Amino acid sequence: MRTGREWHLVRRPVGSPGDGDVRLVEVEVPDPGPGELLVRNTVMSVEPYMRGRMSDRPSYAEPYALDAPMGGLAVGEVVASGVEGIPVGGRVRHELGWREYALVPAEAAEPVGDDLPASAHLGVLGLTGMTAHVGLLKVGRCRPGDTVLVSAAAGAVGAAVGQIAKAMGCTVIGSAGSADKVRFLTEELGFDAAFSHRDTPVREALAAALDRAGVGVDRGFTGGEGARGGGVDVYFDNVGGEQLEAAIRVMRTSGRIVLCGAISVYNATEPVPGPRNLLLMIWRRLRMEGFLVTDHEEERAAFERDMARWLRDGAVRNVETAVPGGIEAAWPAFLAMLRGGNVGKTVVRLAGTP
Amino acid sequence: MRTGREWHLVRRPVGSPGDGDVRLVEVEVPDPGPGELLVRNTVMSVEPYMRGRMSDRPSYAEPYALDAPMGGLAVGEVVASGVEGIPVGGRVRHELGWREYALVPAEAAEPVGDDLPASAHLGVLGLTGMTAHVGLLKVGRCRPGDTVLVSAAAGAVGAAVGQIAKAMGCTVIGSAGSADKVRFLTEELGFDAAFSHRDTPVREALAAALDRAGVGVDRGFTGGEGARGGGVDVYFDNVGGEQLEAAIRVMRTSGRIVLCGAISVYNATEPVPGPRNLLLMIWRRLRMEGFLVTDHEEERAAFERDMARWLRDGAVRNVETAVPGGIEAAWPAFLAMLRGGNVGKTVVRLAGTP
Repeated sequence: MRTGREWHLVRRPVGSPGDGDVRLVEVEVPDPGPGELLVRNTVMSVEPYMRGRMSDRPSYAEPYALDAPMGGLAVGEVVASGVEGIPVGGRVRHELGWREYALVPAEAAEPVGDDLPASAHLGVLGLTGMTAHVGLLKVGRCRPGDTVLVSAAAGAVGAAVGQIAKAMGCTVIGSAGSADKVRFLTEELGFDAAFSHRDTPVREALAAALDRAGVGVDRGFTGGEGARGGGVDVYFDNVGGEQLEAAIRVMRTSGRIVLCGAISVYNATEPVPGPRNLLLMIWRRLRMEGFLVTDHEEERAAFERDMARWLRDGAVRNVETAVPGGIEAAWPAFLAMLRGGNVGKTVVRLAGTP
Repeated sequence: MRTGREWHLVRRPVGSPGDGDVRLVEVEVPDPGPGELLVRNTVMSVEPYMRGRMSDRPSYAEPYALDAPMGGLAVGEVVASGVEGIPVGGRVRHELGWREYALVPAEAAEPVGDDLPASAHLGVLGLTGMTAHVGLLKVGRCRPGDTVLVSAAAGAVGAAVGQIAKAMGCTVIGSAGSADKVRFLTEELGFDAAFSHRDTPVREALAAALDRAGVGVDRGFTGGEGARGGGVDVYFDNVGGEQLEAAIRVMRTSGRIVLCGAISVYNATEPVPGPRNLLLMIWRRLRMEGFLVTDHEEERAAFERDMARWLRDGAVRNVETAVPGGIEAAWPAFLAMLRGGNVGKTVVRLAGTP
């Protein structure tokens, strides 16, 4: 009998997760029955939303069960198949990560091509890229020429948002958590300006970045007909908290704030106060909207078409931090990602070639 | 030479305005030149936004000048005319309130009929009613059958919002600042439930009101396809602060929050923290949007058509607190309105029959 290892959640973290919250367990791997695939995972991703699933407070995603393997996106190779049309050796994407071998029902496995690295299907070609696309274009109604601000811009979604906006001809400003990431955004990804949110006060660091990008901010409020004033048209928010407040302050009249995540509050054990300047939302007629990419399946075709073109053109890169080391490395990689150590999507190589 | 009295702002209030901030001044009233009307004001309104104009911090409305008459909506009778087509005896609406006589340029005077009380043109037939209409229908995309929550519901805009929503067949819950007002909302205006925001914690008072109105609130977050969960579809926010946070908590998936005012923070001298539960905006895909009615002039025809029908049907009443006593009474009436003493629009009768 084949065996494989998998990460179990054994305790619900309070505040920041730690090593005592999980255990790496070796289990027997059954053969697939009819309608099932046995998949050897080659790569899996670790993502901020998983922190939410480790708690049992109500959320949009089901909490992980205790003493059972956690889930998450992975790509792997079929090693035994009970499914007609998906042969041994095929490559599939599925949601049974955090383990070396997964027994995947046919309806939960999505065949993906092998012309691109497996991990791209966890990143810019997957829900990460689609989250950026839907949030920026559909929710944020971004138009060519807009000024776009994105927080956690060196993260997986943020890097995709900034690159898509640049591909559309927007002026793009990003925030990140270190000088290295800031340099990465401007030098590697072509952002017009970037700043570290650890440079406080954030509102001053943001104002200086807007200056560097050549974006004037109108301190007035009314804006005449056709004179919409300066500032940010679309703020794509991945962090909440202080950065959200700073962003509201520099929004242009009729600007859109897209709420995608709030990494600054995920680990908070006390409620985090919201922005103190919501009155500006009235004076400047701002819109703030939360979304979940899973509500927008009808956008998938447009997303895949646009993203394929941008990848081909080189306008968008799949930005990732690839961690070698197999299944043992997954938990430490998750913790490092939460601490902000990563650039782009953090993926863990579990087996074989990427 | 005719003389008249007018209220001048002589000091910018810090926090709550007081009697030392203004002075009632007697001035000479000139005759109108060509293209001008001399109007004897019969009724004027006092409104929360005037508090903002007394400060000189940037806002959407021009600050009042010091040592000059304040402005605001009024209706009056033409006593001398330099304008062809607007005869002596005609009734006009204009923005030169806070005074007994106004010299009004023709382009700033709007003739209004005399088949309805003059004060209705300051309330439900004026910008107040249009604010309710645009905010609820265009910004909030309210549909028949929705559950609508409105704060400051006994105020001028709030009472119009609730009545319009009832006329559309919605379930309507309102908050107000006293037991008398709560009774007024349910017994006089037909709200399904109402509560006092002075009953703390607000979130419990709100939850009980939703129960009384028969609105179940789904404590889950995802909501399946077609199962949108229970709760509030449209929250029309006139107050901000704690009530906004409580409302976010009970919004239904895909709900809309319309930011119209924030009376709870207008007098604040320190920034007021925003809602601590903005994460719910993501999980429940909520939209929050500020607006100013002056951006939506293209809705005026639809508003006037709908409102005329509702008034004729008796579905909507012009709710007002009419203060007698002439120009002397205007400042005390403004202070009482800010303290929450009024029901509906506060209007001051300056002269003649209403």
